[in-house]
Amino acid sequence: MNKLQNAIHSKNSYLCIGLDASPIYWPQHIANNVQGLEYFCKSIIEATQECSVAYKFNLAFFEVWGYQGLRTMQRLLEFIPKDIFTIADAKRSDIGHSVSFYAKAFFETYPFDAITVNPYMGKDSIQPFLEYPEKITFLLALTSNEGSQDFQLQGNPPLYEQVIRKAVQWNIHNNIGFVMGATRPDAILNLRNIFPKAPLLIPGIGTQSGDLTSTLKNAYSPGAPLLITISRAILYADNTANFMRYTQNKSLDYHQKISQIIHEIAIS
Amino acid sequence: MNKLQNAIHSKNSYLCIGLDASPIYWPQHIANNVQGLEYFCKSIIEATQECSVAYKFNLAFFEVWGYQGLRTMQRLLEFIPKDIFTIADAKRSDIGHSVSFYAKAFFETYPFDAITVNPYMGKDSIQPFLEYPEKITFLLALTSNEGSQDFQLQGNPPLYEQVIRKAVQWNIHNNIGFVMGATRPDAILNLRNIFPKAPLLIPGIGTQSGDLTSTLKNAYSPGAPLLITISRAILYADNTANFMRYTQNKSLDYHQKISQIIHEIAIS
Repeated sequence: MNKLQNAIHSKNSYLCIGLDASPIYWPQHIANNVQGLEYFCKSIIEATQECSVAYKFNLAFFEVWGYQGLRTMQRLLEFIPKDIFTIADAKRSDIGHSVSFYAKAFFETYPFDAITVNPYMGKDSIQPFLEYPEKITFLLALTSNEGSQDFQLQGNPPLYEQVIRKAVQWNIHNNIGFVMGATRPDAILNLRNIFPKAPLLIPGIGTQSGDLTSTLKNAYSPGAPLLITISRAILYADNTANFMRYTQNKSLDYHQKISQIIHEIAIS
Repeated sequence: MNKLQNAIHSKNSYLCIGLDASPIYWPQHIANNVQGLEYFCKSIIEATQECSVAYKFNLAFFEVWGYQGLRTMQRLLEFIPKDIFTIADAKRSDIGHSVSFYAKAFFETYPFDAITVNPYMGKDSIQPFLEYPEKITFLLALTSNEGSQDFQLQGNPPLYEQVIRKAVQWNIHNNIGFVMGATRPDAILNLRNIFPKAPLLIPGIGTQSGDLTSTLKNAYSPGAPLLITISRAILYADNTANFMRYTQNKSLDYHQKISQIIHEIAIS
């Protein structure tokens, strides 16, 4: 938790870059293979590390290349400056016996600082992650996709709120955070009322059209770590040989816009 | 679906072996490394393939070894006889754009016949898997762990039933199945009333103490593919140099017990 707070504080930034790297979208001069994956991701990291406090690895984009994609992920983790926070966006879940192996995989084999976890299977499916007190476990609460209406918003209170309320009880090591999509600022306000200091990982800005100002207004809480995740809108800012310059500018744009809004909220 | 039904029919077996291979439990003469992982899993496959209709790979036990564990998984997939059904017990979930990469990973990069998927994120998080009509997508409905009480059994109807009812609407390619723990035979009966022909993948027999007879009585439905998953109780039947013989006997025991009970149900 300290590593994340330090990173946010020293860069005055809340920007998390999602490395959702796909050859369908990356510049065509970059090879459509794992070497291309590594080159593209390293370029993105170089172009954005000035203003990025965290990189989020969505495992799907590495697993699709087979074991070689995972080897690339490992190399990228070594490439990222040590003061930058890393998140395995793995959305894992399993029974306790099995999930302890996932915890070991993402906190030891791959030395991530945090992971995203799917709460559907309940407490014992989450517990092994929580036993790493220095790591943050972000539970999916309300996600940014259309399908969030199918179950997460059903019930009374809605399922995502049930997850948050249970997590408050499970949070003995003070290392639980939540994934809350920017597409529902009212739900973020609801979360902040229940759990004012929870670390939040917020996707849904950028390609997914969540509203930045109302999201930040509801999500910001002094001392609570907050990460706004942008993926495609920064990664694919341009598809020419000059893409790094465009990506850098786009990341700086987002960083400044977010920091400016938060500054205004904080002083108001 | 046909591959699974053919395998069940030709072997008159419903046994699925879960390859939850851990050096904590495997025989001590086998090395505690990825070579040991490959050797142990190949031994288990050799010892059990006579009566096993499916192998289930829980990804946690391969990911914990890093990319080399995934390379081992790929080799094991090539090692398994082609008439035996393979399941990626991955419990994946993500927004539609990302989850299409998981679908490609587990149905193309690794040529599994089926996958387990976590339904928490709703329809668009499942859709990309369903677009492979020849593959089966098993949704987690009611799992066998204690944490299933936290959310899956909450609500009216309970969340696991909401998942099943939604899935009936999504099942246009007739390729959705469910994971239903043996620890709740009454819920399996409930599922069969809603969705009589759904393929079922049933863990929770063996180490987890679900009741086999009542589970099979409620789960069996003529023409509906049914797999009883046993993992640790077969894998770790013995920890000496003779473990293959014990594992083989244990798998035959389970196979015969299951087939006998189903035979009695079918003729009654």
